[in-house]
This record gives sequence, structure tokens and C-alpha cells, in this order.
Amino acid sequence: MSNSGQKGTNFDQWLDSYAARANALSVSEVRALFAVVSRPEVVSLAGGMPYVHALPKDLIARSFETLMADRGDLAIQYSGGQGDLKLRDQVRELMALEGIKSSVEDIVMTTGSQHGLDLVSGLFLDKGDVVLAEGPSYVGAIGIFRHYEAHIEHVETDHDGIQPEALKETIARLKTQGRKIKFLYLVPNFANPSGVTLAEKRRAKIVEICRRNKILILEDNPYGLLYFDKKVPDALRSIDENVIYLGSFSKILAPGFRVGYVLAPPAIREKLVLAQESAILCPSMFSQSMISEYLSNSDWQGQIDTFRGVYRERRDAALEALAEHLPKLSTTHPDGGFYLWITLPDGIDSKAMLPLAVKELVAYTPGTAFYGDGTGHNKLRVCYSFPTPENIKVGIKRLATVINLQTELLETFSKKGATK
Amino acid sequence: MSNSGQKGTNFDQWLDSYAARANALSVSEVRALFAVVSRPEVVSLAGGMPYVHALPKDLIARSFETLMADRGDLAIQYSGGQGDLKLRDQVRELMALEGIKSSVEDIVMTTGSQHGLDLVSGLFLDKGDVVLAEGPSYVGAIGIFRHYEAHIEHVETDHDGIQPEALKETIARLKTQGRKIKFLYLVPNFANPSGVTLAEKRRAKIVEICRRNKILILEDNPYGLLYFDKKVPDALRSIDENVIYLGSFSKILAPGFRVGYVLAPPAIREKLVLAQESAILCPSMFSQSMISEYLSNSDWQGQIDTFRGVYRERRDAALEALAEHLPKLSTTHPDGGFYLWITLPDGIDSKAMLPLAVKELVAYTPGTAFYGDGTGHNKLRVCYSFPTPENIKVGIKRLATVINLQTELLETFSKKGATK
Repeated sequence: MSNSGQKGTNFDQWLDSYAARANALSVSEVRALFAVVSRPEVVSLAGGMPYVHALPKDLIARSFETLMADRGDLAIQYSGGQGDLKLRDQVRELMALEGIKSSVEDIVMTTGSQHGLDLVSGLFLDKGDVVLAEGPSYVGAIGIFRHYEAHIEHVETDHDGIQPEALKETIARLKTQGRKIKFLYLVPNFANPSGVTLAEKRRAKIVEICRRNKILILEDNPYGLLYFDKKVPDALRSIDENVIYLGSFSKILAPGFRVGYVLAPPAIREKLVLAQESAILCPSMFSQSMISEYLSNSDWQGQIDTFRGVYRERRDAALEALAEHLPKLSTTHPDGGFYLWITLPDGIDSKAMLPLAVKELVAYTPGTAFYGDGTGHNKLRVCYSFPTPENIKVGIKRLATVINLQTELLETFSKKGATK
Repeated sequence: MSNSGQKGTNFDQWLDSYAARANALSVSEVRALFAVVSRPEVVSLAGGMPYVHALPKDLIARSFETLMADRGDLAIQYSGGQGDLKLRDQVRELMALEGIKSSVEDIVMTTGSQHGLDLVSGLFLDKGDVVLAEGPSYVGAIGIFRHYEAHIEHVETDHDGIQPEALKETIARLKTQGRKIKFLYLVPNFANPSGVTLAEKRRAKIVEICRRNKILILEDNPYGLLYFDKKVPDALRSIDENVIYLGSFSKILAPGFRVGYVLAPPAIREKLVLAQESAILCPSMFSQSMISEYLSNSDWQGQIDTFRGVYRERRDAALEALAEHLPKLSTTHPDGGFYLWITLPDGIDSKAMLPLAVKELVAYTPGTAFYGDGTGHNKLRVCYSFPTPENIKVGIKRLATVINLQTELLETFSKKGATK
């Protein structure tokens, strides 16, 4: 049991003691960027932070006051492992907005939807199992699947989301190889990192293909309510009750509470609660209660409208700047959420380019972070949720400088190569 | 890959899909008691809830107000995976009270110390690895070790804590058997469930034995500051920097925030942060900030004194009632914390007796919950932290009725058996 990342050093005396799964841990490319983000002169299009400044703090204060007046002692006590019953009932209403019918019994509150994904993955993934995912896919999910030593298989994804035909072919190929496919993980709405939405006509097909092949679907939907114009199609969970649905308050309220939720079929939900009790005893009652009060006493739908307006303006700023400064570049055109996805000319490596971008005072996330198979070199993610529209324009102008320089260099070199 | 707990039912269509670790999940005996606890006519000596009513809620309100005035937007945003720097610095001071010298760099804030224990266990435990633990040991830790498919080996423990000689012998025996011992887990102060404290003269010995055998120590110390008369001996971590130390705000402030911390050697801490980022991205900044403000702006040491007084009075009530109603029974005499541990006459099964106790309107936790090896049938845990002193007396009187009846029955039957 060696630790390949640290071979050659004698500093860690526990090197031979780690579990196999500890060797799968590596510093994520997104994490390394946190330090860069904090420098005020850099326009960061990297991190995926919601713009919490658009949330009036008096709404939080009101939640706190009513909570402490009403049930302060309960809010700071241990609670049940499944989460607060009242909040679970409110979550039902939230999910109903995307066509989901559910029972409070089948909802589990989690420490952000990230922990929901971690716990569900822990229930299913043995070493070598296959997880199907969009290509590209959420970096935090890839990290979890790697941690459980699973193999991530990306399925061809286009502007309408994951392709049903490609899914069918991938499943058939893997089955022929005798691989054990445990689930399909996807972010159907304004996906992280691509910004694309799974087309309505594809949803039933995806569900049907997975049902036929007895493959569980994990539908991760933190952005669905943040549409800019048109409501998103109903959730995959609304088509099939066997879909595991992951939701979060991080983007429609605030991530600092760390509150998400999982809706799962009863047999799985039962195990999920046990896994949660093992991992953390219970989710924070204080955080849950604050959110429950917020949903009870504030115009939370109006607040989501406010967020939509903020992010729409920023998406527009990003697309306008791209059209102005990088007109030839291929990008996605998100109808909601935080992200857009840029494909650079072949031969430009977004990871190698990042230090040059930071020198130009702009940051982004390199494409390789969003693939479990080492691809994505000529892709990059732009997150427009946090900087102001003005800064987004400045950032994309800087990005254009770097990309245009790289493109020129590439063309010069390839011409030279051609004349040799 | 069968799921033994659910064999014979066809309801769970994913039965063949679960990971091996999911089969280790089972409903804990403590969990089943939550429903009982909530009935007001039952005196519950079962759950391990702190008496948060003794915390003035205006202290929480003050923390909230200063926090929101000062850095509301930061408090509700994502934060770093290692936890808030300011709070980590305050944690340093807290640990210094038990003789620990530390750097903020080596502290990781966690979702209660339970998640710290889960994450550390995940870093080290492969299937079949051995964890050494006190006998009895914390039920939540046993659950985690089982979840990682480890083997729990209890080491003889007496009124002075874990026995150094027994530890030495256990290690030698296991090594002869070729077993891989990953760590020793212990709660050195006012242990859950026994209430005993590891004697000062044993501490250096335990550390030395583990160091010589290259066995990591996990020192879990949620109760150390809740001593009734005399300060506890310095932490094992103060003797050896390779000890992993787990702390919590659940008992000295409130558990509803779900904030704990881990102090670990740099190489381990580095992996711990990565494991945490994989599992939850980051711990709740809102909870962390609330606690940081509380530590900055309130007399938290005075509040711990208040808690000490509350729990001392309850410990006294429990011991007095036991002396009055069950004078012959063997119990521990805790000098702090929440628990005392009762040994019933041989032949009485505390788990079988529980329904009778509940019928008499008193609840406790059966001893078997605190052993990973199926022993502990004639033991039970009394938790005196939550009921009032009056109710504790009522509860123990009821408990005495049940135990005395069982003892009589046992004696009658064994006499009958003898005369046959």
C-alpha cells in the first residue's frame, strides 16, 4: 500500500498505514485557485460562489429572531439523523415546483448536497465500479467518485445535455466488458461546468434507458430554480420514483448554512439515514431551523427572482464580452445558473495557459478538472456568478488577450512547422 | 454481495447494487431509543444530550448580532475546506487549557467531532484492519469503525481507564496473529459510556506503548473541560505530537451548530482537509462564525463553569439515588461529564430488561451498544446530563424497581434450579 503522491519523502511516518481510499485524494485544480481568487486585483471567473450580497441580511436576522423566540433550545440541540421534519415538509413544496411528488419520509437533510452525494456514493460504490457521467461533469462529484475508487465513464454530451444514443452505446459497451455500472450521475439544469440543460424530449429517454438497464440515476439539481427566462423541464425524478434527487439551499439562499437534501426511494433512504448518523450523528439543527424560518417568513420566491435577475445580467455581460473580444470562440449559452463553457482552438492547453491568465489578472477553471479521464485540455469554465458585470467584461477582455496571444503563437508555430 | 439484514424481502430492487460497506450499517440501539425519549412521562437516562437550557440565549443573540454587523456576507458564503482561521486560532487557546501546544495550520474544523472521527477513520481503515478501543467504548465510534469494515478489539479498562499492561498484551497477541492494527481510539476523560478518566500515570505509558508499536492514537475529548472538582490531567496529545486529537463545541456550548475540530500531524492533516473537501466542500461558515463570535464576546469559561455546576448536581443526584435504591450495585463514580456505568448481577440482560424499564417509565442505554464484540449484556449506561435532579432520582428509583425485580426472579430461578 504505497502512497504514490508522496513517494520519495520520509516525512510522513504513517505512509504505510493509510487506507487504499486515501491514495485517491489529490489537491483539486479548483482548490489551488482559492488563493488566487482572494487577490483583489484579479478578476476571478474561477470559483463557483453565489452572489450572497444580493440577499438582504435583514431576512436572515428576521429568521434568527423568530427562531430564537420560538424554539431556541431545540435549534441548538442534537436532532434526528434524517433532519428536521418541518423543513423536510417545506422541501417537498420546493421540489413540487419541478414536478416532483414526494413524502417527508423519503427526504433526508444533508450538510450541503455535497454530503448527500458523498453518502449516496458510499452506499453504492465498491472499488472498480463504474459511474456514468456527463462529459464534462461537476468537479466535486468526480472527486467523490475517485475517493470511492470508482471508474468514471463520461457519456457524450452536447448543447441539449447528455445524448441518449451515446448513453445506450456506452452501457452496452461496458456490459460487454463485464463492468459493473452503479449509477448515472447528472446535473440536468444549467450544468456545472457546461451550463447546458438536458432537453425535455431527452429526459424520458434517459430515464427509460437506465430503467431498462437497472442503472440508478442520481439527479443533482442545485441550479434548476435559477432559470433566466423559461422554467426548466420537470425533473427526472418526476418521471420515475427510483431516481435519487439531490437539492441544495446553497444557490437559492446561501451556502454558508451547508444545507442540502436527498430524496430517495424508501429502501435507499433508510440506509442513507444510517450512513448519515454514522458520519455526523445529525445535520445542524441550527442551520436547518434558520432556513425553515426563512421559508416560513420571507418571500423566498421573490428572492429567487432577485437572484435570477443578478445572474441573468452577469450571463449577458459575459456573452456580450465574449462576442466582442472572442467572436470566433465556441461557447455554450446558458439559460440559467452560474457557468459557461469555452472550447479553445485545438492545441491550446487551458491549464498551461492559466498562469499567463493570472499574470493578466484574470482566473478561470481549466477543463481537465471536469473530466475523470484526463481529457478537457482545450476547454475552460467561466463562472459569472460572483463578479460584477463590469468586472466580468474586464475579465473576459483580459482572457481574450491571453487566448488571442496563444492562438497567434499556435498559428505561427504550426506555419513554421509546415514550411520546414 | 448480499444484504443479510434484508434477505427474504423483494422490496429493495437495488439489493444487489449496494457497496460492501453498506452492509455494515445497522440501526443503533441508541437510535431506537429516540422515540422513547420524546414521551414526556418517561424519564430518559438514555440519550447523551447536553442541557442547553443552561445556556443563556442572549449570548447566542449577541454572537449573531455582532457577526452580521461585522461580516454577514462572509458568514453565509462558502469558506475554506480547513475551516475558519480565526476560529482555529481560538481552538488553539481552548486546547492549551489541557496542555496542548498547536499551530493553526494543523487544526481542521469539522461537522461535529463525529465527522472528524469519520474522516480520520476513512483515511486509515481498510477492511479487516484492527482498531483498539476501551471496553466499553463510544457507540458512535463503534458505528464508524464497523462502517469501514474494521475489527474492533476492546482492551481491558478499569476505574483508571485503559490498562497499559492489557494494551501491551493485546498488541502482542494481535501482532502474532498477523493482524494490522491501525490505531487506538480512546475517550480519556469522563468517557462515554463509562464515565472513567484515564489516570495521569497511565497516560505516558499508553503513549509510549503505542509509539513503540507504531500505532496511532485517536484521542477523543469532548468532555475534558466538564470536570466537577479537579482539572483533568494534560491531554495525551501534550505528550506526543503524533496523537490525533478530536475536540467539540457540542458539550461546552451546544451541539446544534455541529462544530468540532481535529488536531493532526501535518501529513495526516493535509489528507484530512482533502477528504473533508471531498465529503462536504467546507464546514458551515455560519456555524463556525457564530461560535467564533461567542468565544470573542462572551465569558465562555464562566459558561463552562455554569455547565459544570449543572452536571455536578445531576451526577450527585444520580449517585445518591443509586446509593439509596440500589446500594449493592457496582457503578462508576464519574468526576465530570455525562455518564455513569452500571454492572448488573450476572444473568441479567440489560437489553432484554429495557422494555420492562420503559413500562416503568424510565429509559437507559443497554451495555451491548458499547462493545463491538457482542459483550456487555449485564451492563448499562445512565446519562444524567439532561433530566432535572428530581427526575433523575425518580428515574433511578424506577430503574431500581425493575432491577430488583429481575434480581429476585434470577435468585428464585437459580434456587429452584439448585434444588432440582
